[in-house]
Amino acid sequence: MSDSPPPASVIIALSESYSRVRRQSESLCEPLVVEDYVVQTMPDVSPPKWHLAHVSWFFETFILAPHLPGYRPFNPGFNYLFNSYYQGVGTPFPRAQRGFLSRPSVAEVYSYRAHIDTHISELITNLDCHRDSLKICELILLGLNHEQQHQELLMTDIKHILGSNPLLPAYSKKIAQNVQNSMVALAWVKLPGGKVAIGHDGKGFCFDNESPRHNVLLNEFLLANRLTTNAEYLQFINDGGYENPLLWLSDGWAAVQNECWKAPLYWRRIDNTWHIFTLEGLKPVNPDEPVCHVSYFEADAYAAWAGKRLPTEAEWEHAAADEDLTQGNFLESGRFHPLPAQTGKRLMQLGGDVWEWTQSPYIAYPGYRPPEGAIGEYNGKFMCNQIVLRGGSCATPADHIRKTYRNFFYPHNRWQFMGIRLAADA
Amino acid sequence: MSDSPPPASVIIALSESYSRVRRQSESLCEPLVVEDYVVQTMPDVSPPKWHLAHVSWFFETFILAPHLPGYRPFNPGFNYLFNSYYQGVGTPFPRAQRGFLSRPSVAEVYSYRAHIDTHISELITNLDCHRDSLKICELILLGLNHEQQHQELLMTDIKHILGSNPLLPAYSKKIAQNVQNSMVALAWVKLPGGKVAIGHDGKGFCFDNESPRHNVLLNEFLLANRLTTNAEYLQFINDGGYENPLLWLSDGWAAVQNECWKAPLYWRRIDNTWHIFTLEGLKPVNPDEPVCHVSYFEADAYAAWAGKRLPTEAEWEHAAADEDLTQGNFLESGRFHPLPAQTGKRLMQLGGDVWEWTQSPYIAYPGYRPPEGAIGEYNGKFMCNQIVLRGGSCATPADHIRKTYRNFFYPHNRWQFMGIRLAADA
Amino acid sequence: MSDSPPPASVIIALSESYSRVRRQSESLCEPLVVEDYVVQTMPDVSPPKWHLAHVSWFFETFILAPHLPGYRPFNPGFNYLFNSYYQGVGTPFPRAQRGFLSRPSVAEVYSYRAHIDTHISELITNLDCHRDSLKICELILLGLNHEQQHQELLMTDIKHILGSNPLLPAYSKKIAQNVQNSMVALAWVKLPGGKVAIGHDGKGFCFDNESPRHNVLLNEFLLANRLTTNAEYLQFINDGGYENPLLWLSDGWAAVQNECWKAPLYWRRIDNTWHIFTLEGLKPVNPDEPVCHVSYFEADAYAAWAGKRLPTEAEWEHAAADEDLTQGNFLESGRFHPLPAQTGKRLMQLGGDVWEWTQSPYIAYPGYRPPEGAIGEYNGKFMCNQIVLRGGSCATPADHIRKTYRNFFYPHNRWQFMGIRLAADA
Amino acid sequence: MSDSPPPASVIIALSESYSRVRRQSESLCEPLVVEDYVVQTMPDVSPPKWHLAHVSWFFETFILAPHLPGYRPFNPGFNYLFNSYYQGVGTPFPRAQRGFLSRPSVAEVYSYRAHIDTHISELITNLDCHRDSLKICELILLGLNHEQQHQELLMTDIKHILGSNPLLPAYSKKIAQNVQNSMVALAWVKLPGGKVAIGHDGKGFCFDNESPRHNVLLNEFLLANRLTTNAEYLQFINDGGYENPLLWLSDGWAAVQNECWKAPLYWRRIDNTWHIFTLEGLKPVNPDEPVCHVSYFEADAYAAWAGKRLPTEAEWEHAAADEDLTQGNFLESGRFHPLPAQTGKRLMQLGGDVWEWTQSPYIAYPGYRPPEGAIGEYNGKFMCNQIVLRGGSCATPADHIRKTYRNFFYPHNRWQFMGIRLAADA
Repeated sequence: MSDSPPPASVIIALSESYSRVRRQSESLCEPLVVEDYVVQTMPDVSPPKWHLAHVSWFFETFILAPHLPGYRPFNPGFNYLFNSYYQGVGTPFPRAQRGFLSRPSVAEVYSYRAHIDTHISELITNLDCHRDSLKICELILLGLNHEQQHQELLMTDIKHILGSNPLLPAYSKKIAQNVQNSMVALAWVKLPGGKVAIGHDGKGFCFDNESPRHNVLLNEFLLANRLTTNAEYLQFINDGGYENPLLWLSDGWAAVQNECWKAPLYWRRIDNTWHIFTLEGLKPVNPDEPVCHVSYFEADAYAAWAGKRLPTEAEWEHAAADEDLTQGNFLESGRFHPLPAQTGKRLMQLGGDVWEWTQSPYIAYPGYRPPEGAIGEYNGKFMCNQIVLRGGSCATPADHIRKTYRNFFYPHNRWQFMGIRLAADA
Repeated sequence: MSDSPPPASVIIALSESYSRVRRQSESLCEPLVVEDYVVQTMPDVSPPKWHLAHVSWFFETFILAPHLPGYRPFNPGFNYLFNSYYQGVGTPFPRAQRGFLSRPSVAEVYSYRAHIDTHISELITNLDCHRDSLKICELILLGLNHEQQHQELLMTDIKHILGSNPLLPAYSKKIAQNVQNSMVALAWVKLPGGKVAIGHDGKGFCFDNESPRHNVLLNEFLLANRLTTNAEYLQFINDGGYENPLLWLSDGWAAVQNECWKAPLYWRRIDNTWHIFTLEGLKPVNPDEPVCHVSYFEADAYAAWAGKRLPTEAEWEHAAADEDLTQGNFLESGRFHPLPAQTGKRLMQLGGDVWEWTQSPYIAYPGYRPPEGAIGEYNGKFMCNQIVLRGGSCATPADHIRKTYRNFFYPHNRWQFMGIRLAADA
Repeated sequence: MSDSPPPASVIIALSESYSRVRRQSESLCEPLVVEDYVVQTMPDVSPPKWHLAHVSWFFETFILAPHLPGYRPFNPGFNYLFNSYYQGVGTPFPRAQRGFLSRPSVAEVYSYRAHIDTHISELITNLDCHRDSLKICELILLGLNHEQQHQELLMTDIKHILGSNPLLPAYSKKIAQNVQNSMVALAWVKLPGGKVAIGHDGKGFCFDNESPRHNVLLNEFLLANRLTTNAEYLQFINDGGYENPLLWLSDGWAAVQNECWKAPLYWRRIDNTWHIFTLEGLKPVNPDEPVCHVSYFEADAYAAWAGKRLPTEAEWEHAAADEDLTQGNFLESGRFHPLPAQTGKRLMQLGGDVWEWTQSPYIAYPGYRPPEGAIGEYNGKFMCNQIVLRGGSCATPADHIRKTYRNFFYPHNRWQFMGIRLAADA
Repeated sequence: MSDSPPPASVIIALSESYSRVRRQSESLCEPLVVEDYVVQTMPDVSPPKWHLAHVSWFFETFILAPHLPGYRPFNPGFNYLFNSYYQGVGTPFPRAQRGFLSRPSVAEVYSYRAHIDTHISELITNLDCHRDSLKICELILLGLNHEQQHQELLMTDIKHILGSNPLLPAYSKKIAQNVQNSMVALAWVKLPGGKVAIGHDGKGFCFDNESPRHNVLLNEFLLANRLTTNAEYLQFINDGGYENPLLWLSDGWAAVQNECWKAPLYWRRIDNTWHIFTLEGLKPVNPDEPVCHVSYFEADAYAAWAGKRLPTEAEWEHAAADEDLTQGNFLESGRFHPLPAQTGKRLMQLGGDVWEWTQSPYIAYPGYRPPEGAIGEYNGKFMCNQIVLRGGSCATPADHIRKTYRNFFYPHNRWQFMGIRLAADA
């Protein structure tokens, strides 16, 4: 039995979204030279051309191959090369070797993208007579959200590729005018506790890990009105924060020792002044900007040093419930760098700038079940050893973030745009 | 201002506990030859003599040195060698090198123990006129609970030392008569949800991580009436459980690949029959016994295969609220091996036999704060990357376990007596 | 006191050599796409653009900077990036991270080359009035021989980059017509012993490690008339050569186990037939071609299996004394692959095709002294743990090889064009 | 056809040697506590009880099992545990895990030794009527020389075990009176070149690698009259020897960096004074003693710094031809530590004190062939990547050394009693 097809307006909107999102990925790569597309500077990083191909592979594998009659893959070898981690559709190419692949060339990857776009267009055009039209719409929506996630990864990986190069090349010299600095004093916003619902309510798109919506009990708590700044974090550094094991989680202290951490990623001391590498190149640390590129271990140690703690993800979502996240410093600003807090709101910087480490391990919500099949590998199998981050960053597309959005990384990861908002018991 | 000293009866009881616990540690080592005390078969394992010395160092460092006037350490070099992970009292000797230490000899370690015992006795005898008598009582109680934890580790490490040896020597050939086997059918006990209090209520000793007591919301749920058996786990193995990535967490599948896991630890296939190494030596797998020595990854994959899930720690504690944990198969039985479930109870095997993996990451309860000073490193700094286990095992002293007790290990660890109890949504 | 300048004819010849060699490097890269220039598939491999830049850095650092008045480096950052291992001129960029460098771009590297060429031309043009003209000539000659060595490395590294890619792209589909196969029977050429002089006689260019010429004592010995063929090596494989530890050196057997060697590098079994990856793409193994891409360990094990041995480098050089090496299958043939032996000579394939493993560790000749300064790091500091190979390969420029030429690699290396010629006691 | 049996006097002498050598091994272990027998502080080190068992396994495997009718192994599991590297008689237990074996106990190992001794005695007693009597005599002689090699390893491994322990326990506090210090000036002995025979002449026992005797050509050369002293080596250290890459072989400089070498093994700086750990415990460095526990890399770098070189093994053997090696500081002195040179000889310290690094890679002599069978694995398969040392040390049994004796270790090894004698071109 076939679905009843979605209304034409929905199909048109989907088609427009598709074009817009796909174009966005390519536009982010415009400042690159061909060589930048190829390099993998650590196993966590993927070469930009791999991202561009992988998101296309996602459409090909989960939509075109099963749902477009007569579809033939662009290149059968790509199923191995561009499968990230979907064991259900074959053994993926080893992640740490993505930088070994000079071929397919960047030009071929763009051809691959065009090939996918042509066929997705064809599929959308004929969607009204397809028996699985609703499911296909959902999958395309998933594919677009997937591609938006990779847009953020594109920017963080490009930053790592350029920032690992001793020549410290800029992604773009003229990114955007910085807004004026402003010294917003740290203040504490008191939030009520009680039985609180978190998780997605099912209206509009969400990832499976955001559901089911459910109740949790919260105590009254305090949340910082803005993100932790570089100036504040420098006090932690200057107070010997990186030398004092009593401030750190056990695994965190091991990371400090093994990785010789002395400051956030991309910080370097030159002539006695701290600098940071940004996508505009090397700059002196701006004390008013939010600290960025810190691991969970560093965020937790900083909170311990400050006599505070990180919020839980439920506290964060509860605090955000009445806030507008959409006006933040997102990908579209073209800054690719967090901005100092601007006065005028009770809770500033909740959306954009930097992902905010919570203290919550990334686990399933009560009653969560991953979808059937390979697509079920999307989120569920990572629910171990990772920590939830909330709120999006300056590399997140603005229409991609939600208050219920759960990002997650390992506690030692630092290469994303990650920062700190403190909390405290009331 | 000095404390008012505890009543004499409390002091006498403490003194008796001290003697009993300290003797217990040594009695567990009686079947060993000197060589068994020295070996470290993997970084997680400590040589038995190291355990015996470390628990004594704990009394010396946190009680005798600060509280017994004029106390001089047995050997100043021991502070480096037998500090496990207390960065607050100095850099510890590297954990992975504990097996490099032929000295101090086992005899010297026993002298060290006697020296500590003499001085703790002296301290207890004069406790009524000590200005910090209450605090000292608390610290001695902590020291004894600490030593009981190491009694369990002693047994699991001895098992690893003997079980890693190709000669497969038994710890003792005549451990204890096994009880009769029994086939208790798997059944599901329905437990009500609601607002439920978990955590320690402050009456009697508990570790800091069990508090504060607080409310959580639970849905109605089902809990297996007994532990998962070897027979059931064998079905998972025979059904290709270790070859199917779709059943595993992502980090779990990596562990399966890297460690070549094909079965629980200590299982080996001989002439087409599965055997397990026990402290009595090698034996054929008993299908009715609880499966033991599985990692969290294996427990989770088994649950996925079975179409069920693991319980949360709150569910487990809630289910245990009305149960009697004290009649289980604990250390004192001298079996050092889990037993088949015996009929007669609604929920069997909650206490003893094997620690039960929950699905809950080991994190702080709301409002938790570690104690000040080095003793604060006891639990808090491990609240990352580990998973909670509940209920105690056949190597846990019976009076050491509590319903609120939170054990924790990394999800890849298998060398403890760890097993599986399934849960499900109601 | 200045040198008397070399004659004009010498300067003209040098200038022509310079142009020819420099052009050759670039011409070898013509079939590449930009992406191929960037990738490093193992620490031993360098990205092609790194080779192109490094050989230019060599001219810049050792000739232009010290000898061309007023010379300013193209980019001061390049001294760090393109220094291979000359500790005397600064700490080199970590070798294993050469593939992390997307910048400088390939276009910039070609500009760098043009910049160097312009300035070397300027230096050569004015050489007759330069006080160090003779020394500069020698250094340019060294720089050209250095670049020729990197031409071979370019080809072996390009082969590894393409051959590591699951798409198995060809460097060029139409490389060259293969000559006809021919079955030349293995025969033994007896060579007389006695007091024999080896090493370079000082006429014309040589590397420092080829001197001083000195006498050695040789016993009469036998040398195979041709290289070991794939057919012969397949017998070793099929006879279980890779499974029999008694045939292998101890470190060799460890390599077989750790690297899971089952055949030479680039061999893969498809549908029960052995294939090899060549720069023309994947082809079935040709039984008459010399076996190629075997390590010293494999060469030695093969010789043990055959009941023979490898020649010493003195034996090889002695045997080659009356032979003409120049007519072999070298780089200029454009085949980049060894050819079957062609009848007509007593000793075939001595020059070109594949480098021949000797049994001689790479050590200093009696009385050898490396040159003063950083240039002394060229050869001397590698005289440990490596093995001498002789005769050049299909990737060696024909005018680069000499009978006294000592190539050297670690005994586990396989990615060069390396093969086997057997020897035996007479 | 059976051998004609050796004369009774030979058999008696062999029997006496057997008793003496076997007793010697046990006597070296007398100062140990049981725990010292068990520990393995790095993969190169074996636990003392492993040495005691392995040398017995050698007699059992190569003599008793094949030649004593009806012999039954003491424990069949020992063939796996105590096989060092003889792939021909089975896969050996992993070397790096020898310290994981608490069993067999030390007492069982001594029982194993007694069992072997009883049966070898039985074999020797009945040797005159054994058909393979000559071969058995040869094998027993090999077994005794093998055990003597392990006596040296016992002492170097015991030193490493005690010296790795932060308590720095002494093997024995009263080892032996030191002889008086003496400042023997460094002088150069000129030795003639020419055609020179080296290698064993076949009279008496030798290892296979010492033969065949053969001629080599030597130039006239200079050899230092004594070993390099601590005072001299300290000049190298103080001159920045460990910080100057230009002095080092490439692989040596990598070792300096990776291992953070700043001085020889067992040196530690305390209160601004260099100390060394000896088997008597920690002592200040004696400037007149030979420097000891240096790698080949350090010996070579020191020689480069001094403007000299190391001798070849042929030069060393040639220089020793007319010298008496037997009066040196060997194992029997009970000092286990090198002594300052004593005046009175042209070439001092050639025998004993420290093994002298030559510049010669350990390779086969022309015409060398390993024996057939597993016993052929004794020496031949190590002829790659190692360097020859000559002359014996303070841990070598005096009757074990020969002028033709070729010891060999990897160039990074330092834990043997290894030192430096300089050479130079004449």
